[in-house]
Order: sequence, then C-alpha cells, then structure tokens
Amino acid sequence: MKAARLYEYDPAMNVELKIEDVPPPTITAPNEVVVKVGAAGLCRTDLHIIEGVWKDIMDTQGSLLPYVMGHENAGWVEDVGSAVTSVKPGDAVICHPFQSCGICLNCRYGHDMYCDHGTFPGLGIDGGFAEYFKTSESSLIKLNTGITPLSVAPMADAGITAYRAAKKAARLSYPGSWTVLLGIGGLGHIALQCLKHISGGRVIAVDREPAAQKLAKDLGADVVLDGGPDLIEQVKDITGGGAHVVIDFVGELGVENICWKLLRQGGELIMVGYGGKIEIPTLDLVANEIKIGGSLVGDYIELVELMELNADGKVMMHQTEYKLANINQAIDDFKNRRFTGRGVIVP
Amino acid sequence: MKAARLYEYDPAMNVELKIEDVPPPTITAPNEVVVKVGAAGLCRTDLHIIEGVWKDIMDTQGSLLPYVMGHENAGWVEDVGSAVTSVKPGDAVICHPFQSCGICLNCRYGHDMYCDHGTFPGLGIDGGFAEYFKTSESSLIKLNTGITPLSVAPMADAGITAYRAAKKAARLSYPGSWTVLLGIGGLGHIALQCLKHISGGRVIAVDREPAAQKLAKDLGADVVLDGGPDLIEQVKDITGGGAHVVIDFVGELGVENICWKLLRQGGELIMVGYGGKIEIPTLDLVANEIKIGGSLVGDYIELVELMELNADGKVMMHQTEYKLANINQAIDDFKNRRFTGRGVIVP
Amino acid sequence: MKAARLYEYDPAMNVELKIEDVPPPTITAPNEVVVKVGAAGLCRTDLHIIEGVWKDIMDTQGSLLPYVMGHENAGWVEDVGSAVTSVKPGDAVICHPFQSCGICLNCRYGHDMYCDHGTFPGLGIDGGFAEYFKTSESSLIKLNTGITPLSVAPMADAGITAYRAAKKAARLSYPGSWTVLLGIGGLGHIALQCLKHISGGRVIAVDREPAAQKLAKDLGADVVLDGGPDLIEQVKDITGGGAHVVIDFVGELGVENICWKLLRQGGELIMVGYGGKIEIPTLDLVANEIKIGGSLVGDYIELVELMELNADGKVMMHQTEYKLANINQAIDDFKNRRFTGRGVIVP
Amino acid sequence: MKAARLYEYDPAMNVELKIEDVPPPTITAPNEVVVKVGAAGLCRTDLHIIEGVWKDIMDTQGSLLPYVMGHENAGWVEDVGSAVTSVKPGDAVICHPFQSCGICLNCRYGHDMYCDHGTFPGLGIDGGFAEYFKTSESSLIKLNTGITPLSVAPMADAGITAYRAAKKAARLSYPGSWTVLLGIGGLGHIALQCLKHISGGRVIAVDREPAAQKLAKDLGADVVLDGGPDLIEQVKDITGGGAHVVIDFVGELGVENICWKLLRQGGELIMVGYGGKIEIPTLDLVANEIKIGGSLVGDYIELVELMELNADGKVMMHQTEYKLANINQAIDDFKNRRFTGRGVIVP
Ligand SMILES: [Zn+2]
Ligand SMILES: [Zn+2]
Ligand SMILES: [Zn+2]
Ligand SMILES: [Zn+2]
Ligand SMILES: [Zn+2]
Ligand SMILES: [Zn+2]
Ligand SMILES: [Zn+2]
Ligand SMILES: [Zn+2]
Ligand SMILES: [Zn+2]
Ligand SMILES: [Zn+2]
Repeated sequence: MKAARLYEYDPAMNVELKIEDVPPPTITAPNEVVVKVGAAGLCRTDLHIIEGVWKDIMDTQGSLLPYVMGHENAGWVEDVGSAVTSVKPGDAVICHPFQSCGICLNCRYGHDMYCDHGTFPGLGIDGGFAEYFKTSESSLIKLNTGITPLSVAPMADAGITAYRAAKKAARLSYPGSWTVLLGIGGLGHIALQCLKHISGGRVIAVDREPAAQKLAKDLGADVVLDGGPDLIEQVKDITGGGAHVVIDFVGELGVENICWKLLRQGGELIMVGYGGKIEIPTLDLVANEIKIGGSLVGDYIELVELMELNADGKVMMHQTEYKLANINQAIDDFKNRRFTGRGVIVP
Repeated sequence: MKAARLYEYDPAMNVELKIEDVPPPTITAPNEVVVKVGAAGLCRTDLHIIEGVWKDIMDTQGSLLPYVMGHENAGWVEDVGSAVTSVKPGDAVICHPFQSCGICLNCRYGHDMYCDHGTFPGLGIDGGFAEYFKTSESSLIKLNTGITPLSVAPMADAGITAYRAAKKAARLSYPGSWTVLLGIGGLGHIALQCLKHISGGRVIAVDREPAAQKLAKDLGADVVLDGGPDLIEQVKDITGGGAHVVIDFVGELGVENICWKLLRQGGELIMVGYGGKIEIPTLDLVANEIKIGGSLVGDYIELVELMELNADGKVMMHQTEYKLANINQAIDDFKNRRFTGRGVIVP
Repeated sequence: MKAARLYEYDPAMNVELKIEDVPPPTITAPNEVVVKVGAAGLCRTDLHIIEGVWKDIMDTQGSLLPYVMGHENAGWVEDVGSAVTSVKPGDAVICHPFQSCGICLNCRYGHDMYCDHGTFPGLGIDGGFAEYFKTSESSLIKLNTGITPLSVAPMADAGITAYRAAKKAARLSYPGSWTVLLGIGGLGHIALQCLKHISGGRVIAVDREPAAQKLAKDLGADVVLDGGPDLIEQVKDITGGGAHVVIDFVGELGVENICWKLLRQGGELIMVGYGGKIEIPTLDLVANEIKIGGSLVGDYIELVELMELNADGKVMMHQTEYKLANINQAIDDFKNRRFTGRGVIVP
Repeated sequence: MKAARLYEYDPAMNVELKIEDVPPPTITAPNEVVVKVGAAGLCRTDLHIIEGVWKDIMDTQGSLLPYVMGHENAGWVEDVGSAVTSVKPGDAVICHPFQSCGICLNCRYGHDMYCDHGTFPGLGIDGGFAEYFKTSESSLIKLNTGITPLSVAPMADAGITAYRAAKKAARLSYPGSWTVLLGIGGLGHIALQCLKHISGGRVIAVDREPAAQKLAKDLGADVVLDGGPDLIEQVKDITGGGAHVVIDFVGELGVENICWKLLRQGGELIMVGYGGKIEIPTLDLVANEIKIGGSLVGDYIELVELMELNADGKVMMHQTEYKLANINQAIDDFKNRRFTGRGVIVP
C-alpha cells in the first residue's frame, strides 16, 4: 500500500515524508481491526513529531523510524480479528486515537486517556497517513447513516479535545453566565459550536485573526473580541466582573497569564493549549476562589457524543483536503498558516 | 385602584370575579415593595381556587374572601419599604410568585419553595389581577433592557415550573440521548425551548392536539408524536430501547402509568402534572433501575436564568392578552380551550 | 472436581442439589480465567432459581440443567487464557458476578450491569458451588494483602448491591441529614457500615428482629427502631419532618408503601428489595418533590471500592460457613432463618 | 462593657490592645442582633490586622481605629431587632463571621462569601473581643442542646474554612483514594477529622512538628509524614503514583510548588493557605490534567453542617483559653507558638 513515512527527526523541519509502497498491516491478535483509511487529520502534534519533540517519549529506543504518522483517522473496516463482534468489514468508522486496555482501574473508571497500558497509533506505532492502518475494536465508533469518513476524521483528536473542554465548561455554565474562548482555530471553532448547543450560557470568542473572528461570529458567538491590550478590562465590563469560565486554547505567548485574570470570583479556567508557564500568587487563587485545570484529549464516549452532535448538524469541522501524495505540501501550508480550520489527508 | 375580586368558591365555577375599586396596597414593613402591575398570567391554579380546591390550604379560617387572585406578575416598582435597596420606583420587574423568608434552613440551602414561613400573593393574600399588588424585595428580578412586563408575566410561574423540569432533564441528557415531553401546552412549550438551548440531547414531543404538534415542530422538537396507543412501542423504536428522560406535564388520565414505561434502563421520569396515581411494581423499579421524581415551581434563581434565556431570544411565551375588565371572558375562554399557550391579564 | 448441581426446578423446594464429580472447566477463549473457589456466598437468588423463578429468563431453552449455581465467588486464579495479563495463577481474587462485554456503549459509560451482551456465571452458566469455576479477566479484582477469599465472597453480590445503594444515599447526605434503612439483614448491615464511613449524615436503622436491632446498634446506627405501626410518626419526629433519604431493602409486604411516606420534602427513596407494588398519587410526588428510584447490583468499580473499605477494616461481612458437602443443609437453614447475616459455602 | 481595642497598626507588632470600658452596641436596624460573647477565637488574621495588612481593604478612610477585633464568635442572644423571629434573647448561638445581604445574586446562589454588600464584624466594624457585639439575624445558628459557646467559637471561621476544603476533597474521594493534608494546625486538624467522617478515602497528614504529627495520628490519619525532602517520592510510593487530592494549608515557604507535584493524573489541589506564588508549566497542567483551586471561608450552611458534626462528637476543636483581660498575653503566645490548636478569648 501507499504510505507516507518519516525517516528522520529535524528541529528545523527541513525533511520530507517519503511516499512509498509498504506492506499493509495484518491482523495478529483477536481484538485487532485493519481500517481502510478514508481521511486522516493533520495535527500540530505531527509537526512536533517531525521536530523530534516526542522522540524521548514515543521512541526511547531510537528504533521507531521509518514510520507512518497520522492519529486522526476515519475510514472503513477492512479486516477483523477472531474476537471482534461489534464491527464487520465495510462498516464506516471513526477511530478514537488511543488504544486503551479496558482492564486497568483507570479504564474501568472511564478515564481512557489515563490507561496504564495504552498505545497510540500515529505516535508510537504506525498510523493513518497511508491506505490502511491497524487499531483495536474498542477504539472504533460506527458512523451514523449518511456521515462520511472524510467529513469527520479530525474529530478523532482535535474534535474531542475541544468537546471535552466545552463539556467541562457547560457543566459550569447556566443562562446568563459567560464563557470566554481564547483562540478560535481548529479546536476553538469546535468548542464554540459545542458550547452553543449544549449550554444556555453566553460565549465571548477572542482571536487576533479577522478570519477567525468572522468564523466565530458566524458560528454564534455572543461577543467577538480581538484580544488587544484591553482584553481584561473589556471582559470585566461585558460580564459584570469577570467570566464564569475561560477556555485557553493557546497556553503560551503570555496568554497563559492573562487567561486567569479574566475570571470572576468562583470562576474556572480550563487550559488546553500549552508551552508557557502560569505564575499566580496563592492569594489570588484563594481570595477569588478561582480554579485552574488542564484538559486532555477526550475519552471514547466523548467521541461518541461529538459524533451525535455532528450527525444532528450541530457541530461541523472546517477543513481543507490534500491527497496523500501531496502531504508534504499540506505540512508546509500548515506551518505557514496558508489554510484555516484543519488540514485533512486523503489516501 | 381597579381589582378583580373573588367573592365565593364554586365547584361548578358559575361565579364571576367582580371588577371594583379598592384601596391600593401600602407599605407596612421595611422589606415590602408595591408593584404597578404590567401583566398577570392566568393559571390553571386560578381555576382551582375558584372551584374551592385551595380553600382548605390557603383559607382555613374562611376569612380570605373577597380577595384578588393572580400569582404570575410583572410590572414596575411603585413604592418601596425603608430597607429596600436593590430596586427603586420605576424599575421594570418580574415577581417570583413565592415570598420566602430567606432565614430558615430550607431557604439557606436555596430551596425557596420549601421555605418554612413563605406566603403566596394571589393564593393566600391579594395578588396581581389589579392595578397594584404588594410583594417583598427578595421576590423581585429586574427586567433586562428592552424586555416588557407584558411579554414575560407568565414566566413567573408557568415558565419556571417548565424550566426547573427542563434543567433537571438537561443534567441527565447528553448528545445522542432522548428526552420525551408529554404535553406541549403552556408549560411543555417552554420546556421544549429550554431543552433545545441548554442540552445537546434529542427531544420527542408528544401531544394529541394538531396545533400543539405544529408548535412543537416549529420550536425544534426532533420528533413529534400524537400519543396514540402505540406510543410505548414508537418511543422504544426511535430511541433504541427507551428514553433517557421523560417529563410528564399531564400526570393524570392514564398518562401517569404510561410515562414510566417509556424509559430505558437507568432512565428517569420527571413528573410535573398531577391528579392520577402511579402504580408500579418494585421489580420494575429495581430491574430497570429507573427513577421517578416530582418537580415543583422553580426557585428564584431559576426565574433569573429563565429571564436570561428570554433576553437572549431563546425562550418565548406564546400568549393571548385580555384587559382586566374582561377577565371573566378570559377565564371562560381558558376553561373552554379557546386559546393556545397562555392567557394574560392587562390592567 | 466436586460440584453441587441442580437437577430440577421445584416451586415447593423439595429438591436437593447433588454433590458429584464433574470435569473442571477449561480455558476455551483468550480472556477466560479458571478460579479455584475459596468460598461462594449463598443468596436468596439461589432459592429463587431452585423455585424456577429465573427459568424463563436464564433457561429459556430448558437445556440448562443440570448445572452449578453460585454467583458470589472468591478464590485463587488457577489458569488463564492467552490474552490475560492482569492476573496470574495463584493470585487471590474476588469475582464481580457479571461478565460484561466491555465494548458496548453501556459498558463504555461504566454501566456494567446494563451491558448488552453479558453473561452471569451461577445463573445462566455454571457458577461457584464447586471446586473450580470459570469467568473472565475483566470480572476479577485482586485481593488486598492479608484478605482471604473466605472472608469476602458474599461481597461479590450482596455487598456491592448494598454499597451501590449506600453510595447513592451518601451523595444525598450531609452532616445533620437523616437516612433510614429498612431491613438490617445481609444487605442492610453492609449498607449501614458503608454509610457510617462514607457519609457524615445520621442513620436510623429499622428492623423487626431484636438480633438485627442489636447488630445495627453495634455497627453504629444513630437510632434503631423496630418498625412498628408508629414508624412514620416516629421518623417524622426524630428527623424534624421526614428523612432526607430512605433505602428500602424489603420492597414488599406493605413496606413498599410506607417507605416513601418517611421522606421529607425533596427527599429520595432508594428501592433495593422487590416483590410489592408502589401506589403513589402524582400529587404526593409533585407537592413534596420526592423521588423514588430502584437500585441494582453494583458495578465493577463499586466492588473495587467496597474491597478497599473492607481492607481498611471499615466494612465486614457477618457470615456462617458450610462445607460444600453440606450445601443442602445450608439452604435449609437459610430458608428457615437459622442463621443471621450471610451463609457461605466452602469447597 | 469591657472591650479590647486596637489603637494603632504596627508591622512590628509592638503594640498592645487596650482593655477599656466602652458603651455596648445597641439595635439600630430591624434585622440586627446583639450577642453576649461567650468566647471569641484568636486568628492569624487578627495578627495581620495589627500589622496593618488589612488597612487598605477594611480601613480605607483611616477612620476605623480604635476598634474591637474578633470575628470567630459564639455566645447568647442579648437583644434583637423588630424583624427578628428566628432567635430570642437567651438562645445560645454561633455567628457566621460574614454578614451577607441575602438579596444579591451571589447570595441567592448560596455563595455567601461572594456577597456584593457584606460586612465583616471584627474586621471592618467592631467584633467579639468584648462582652457584647452586634451582628444580624441571618448570621446566627442556634447551638445544639448541650453545646456551649466556649467549646465551638473558632468553628465560626477556622472551622468552616477547614470544613469547606474537606467537603471539596470528600466529593473527589472514594474508598481507596488518597488525600494529602499539608499542615495539621488549627485548620488542618479540623479538616482531618471532617475527612475521616464524611469520606471513605484515605488521608496522609504532613507536618514538620512532632506534636502535630502525634495529633494527626490520634485523629485517625492513615499515614503521617514529616514533610522532609523526600515527600514527593514518599507520597508517590504510598499512593501508587500520586494523591487524588491535596489540601495545602500552608500556601507559602515553598510548599506551594511542592503541593501540586504530589498529585496523580486527574488529581486536584485545594489551596487554603497563601503568601507564596505558584509557578507551573501549562504542559504539566494539561498532560497530567490536574486542577488547582483556591478555597475561602465556608458559607452559612457549611457552619450549620460543621456544628452537626460537632454535636455528633465527630469533630472537636483543640484550644487554649485566655481571659479577655489577658488577650495581649494570648497574642504573644500565639505569635511565639506557645500553644497548639487554637487560642480562645473568654470575656
Ligand atoms: Zn491531533
Ligand atoms: Zn487501561
Ligand atoms: Zn509552542
Ligand atoms: Zn400559575
Ligand atoms: Zn424560609
Ligand atoms: Zn446474590
Ligand atoms: Zn457491554
Ligand atoms: Zn418476595
Ligand atoms: Zn479567623
Ligand atoms: Zn449579598
């Protein structure tokens, strides 16, 4: 099969993936499933992998390369292991990115992403920038009637990360409350749609880019701001003292120490982006009784729920498609912000 | 001032309210507020009062009559007691129907309706079918800019009863889950709008009346059913085994023993209507692990939240207006179902 | 191996299990585990099986008999399938009674007992009244150091049913609140211990038997009542208006229509026992805003948590032991209430 | 009446309170209550007031002095305003430290401490280091039978701050989970008792002082540690990867950047102490999905609940008593750590 493989890490990213013919994956355990890839989302994590950021975590032996990236996959079941009963060849599916064990206590508590024994196709083993890739039965969700793999692939990671954060925010929201979204990109535009459909609260969308501001307005943001130097004062004015919830999709470049200053007493910050360092006096935490919490990739059932929102027409992915043969062009366009929303690779 | 007063109870309802001149209420305690009535909703409870249903609860001494009904009130502050600071004459307000004490433990836990020492204008003392009525500061909510008392008065009781039930349902809902609403009348059409804006779940609206069915469809119900003899089977088919939540706005006429049969394992029934008797084998409760709970009038903050949804244009009251002088016509039309939605009395 | 097998159903229970030599179970699928039985709890469900109550559910083909009952099992791992990694031969384990699939949506939401594809050793297939029985990896919990299978076997079903109900009650409790337990038998005495350790609320234990009353007092009940005709009045007096929570372990014999009358406004009934029929006017549900809900066997993680309480010395099973050879005596003693707490069969 | 009054701020604390005769407070508004002081807790906040720390917040006009400190008060009702109905002269009461308005939206949501219009006797106006002080009806809780003001006064602030944090921790705990308490002083020893009675989880108590370690052991801590340089490693070992919850009663001196490193993935830090600054990379927040939140003084109902735990004998204050005439000695002993637990002033 055709696959795009990475041959070396390069912090400067002056490397290209090689498009080559490799043997397709085959079933070797009873719970495995081979998926014919319909589409695979291109993620900032893929850039970080190329840069070597993940080398010490996912490639400790230095034996991973060459390998196939791609962890936001959707397609059709091609072959199944002997124990698989919930899907059959031909079924259209989206793939939760993480293969959790289902047995450890974290899994039993429903915390898929804390699994003690998980594997991550597209990071630690071959992924979906290819015609086929292999995962396990418990990662698969059958698509609703009329939904194509191409229309949803990035939901598998970008989508559920945004949905998980939005769901946390919705639990803290109520009619009349205010949630601020910092960054209306690939994740932020999904979180905005989710919030407008699962919560009765109000949303302030903040982004420096006019295109993102327009998208936010189109998707129903109650207020759109450009994130200038008056942001804190603007938010306090609009909300009557501060936001009830803030979701920070940036997490660096100084935003990480503005975000929590947008909160009112009792408010909560949900941090999705990363890179920077929060510095907060304990007095501010206590006197304002605010909370600051990180948010990871969503669990399996969060992908199930997001796919239902998508099937109901409530949450849609804005994306740009590239042929697998043009994946290096897609990566270059992504690095240089030549498209908005999400890039998607189609084999 | 002009007021419509009830002079006698009559189970057959062959009595009319008298429109007469009476002295307006005056401030006699520091926390009191006199409100110039903008509009007052006409409620099924008013019919019950006339019939004498509430006599043993609200008029135990037999000394209440003649008095002024009307417990769904909105208007403008006319006069305030010496301790009142949060509103001033001229402010447009809606009035929570119950004057809770704010001091008892139930009040402190936020359960306004369980207050040990509450009073109920329009039931146990004079209410709002008049030019003025008296309540207390802690029952008042200032209207958002641009909202008129006339457009929201029935929110004060019908609205928050529906919202409280919808809020309970929303907590049990998630994208892909199903809530069934039984009865799309004055309360049901509000609950439907609330659910579609505060929850990502799906809603099945059930009503025998074609006009109510059309309203449900217009307001965004995912499925509308006519409540025929196949209802249980229809709901099980559509939902794949039963609803996650059912709200029963009827509660009698046999509906009370159909409602809980619509639930799936782990599902919950929220009962708002009443009159009938539920008969359920404990085995059905346990084996299906279903839950059945009553739901009362909403608390003060639930009226606050509902007014925010209304200000955002998400939840609107469908109503028909009558002059105070025509209140007996309004009552007659209500009894004979000559209007849909809610009747509202305007002084 | 030795096993006690049932050869025929008899509503009058004039049958005995046959103690005979049968081939031990063997591994036939990669996730299976054979357990050497250390002890197996004797349950009222076993009596119902003999009576034929479960025939239409678990033996629809009429091909189940002869078979081995026993669904409350603990012991040591004897053999494991090829995919099993979390336990190894020699490990002391307790067995969740239900083999859930881990794949269906109910399983993924953590609702093990709602699994679409579960099997139930000791009901629908051979169980633990034998030297060995077979279950699956995902049902097993390793025992804490120093805990023996014999001391905990009935925790596997009686224990977690009580714990699940107690956990629901604890979520509704707070210091100063009152929970009423109706029935301090095999389940009730566990629920009482759980509540006293996971909630700061107060507990009223109700049982007609003096021995059960004494046990309740010893285990820390704040008040012990005998369940006489004044029960409702007594509870209202002690609690200042009614209980916040009631757990009914009886569910029949008239108790099912006393239990919900013990609640205060906003209170909740948790029904565990069954057999009777609740008859409740919808007006009582609504005006008092009370809730009535069934409660099933606990999930896997509830057994994990209960085993931690047991390891900490907080919750202990009161039981009487019988040799497997004497199982018919144990059944007879159980029917005739010749022991208190739980009977346990030891191979 | 006798009262201890502060005449000047001094960062070096080389000032003494003057014990002098002043006119007792009198009722001037309908909801006011004069309380005959039974006891008043001495708080670190009192030291901060003397140092001038609160001058810019509570004495912006510079007109407060001379005044009476003391915000942890219990005693007997002496006189009541005309609108007061829930207490009468002679009733033994404990006083929530904050006089909230009961009308603003924060109050209606039950967030007493976020009240838009509150006052704080003992900080911004005269408090309880005197024979009498004045508060309002809505701050009072009648003592349970047999409870004396002397035995509970510091519960009014130190107690509920600890209880609020413990209650948050309990909601995150379950049998088998681990909570770490950093600092077993006036607040920590209350939180420990609370946790052992309202949660089934395990507790690790950490304090450098041998006396505090002994107290922790006596009060039921599962593990007691001395907070040495290996603390993080010790906690990870004992808990199998990190604590589920940490409550930091220190919040400075470097502890504020050790506390969150004790958490496991998904864990939560509750910060009560303050003074230091947290510095945390957003990557740590996100990858471990941990949460960090401040915790304030408890609300009115939290004091109600704590008094119930106290009445049940579950939570007791360890304290040392001083006559009002010796308050300067008490302050000196407090500064120099000459007593453990809490100091209490008795008029
Ligand atoms: Zn990704
Ligand atoms: Zn796992
Ligand atoms: Zn970066
Ligand atoms: Zn009404
Ligand atoms: Zn009250
Ligand atoms: Zn059993
Ligand atoms: Zn399943
Ligand atoms: Zn029975
Ligand atoms: Zn204090
Ligand atoms: Zn307030």
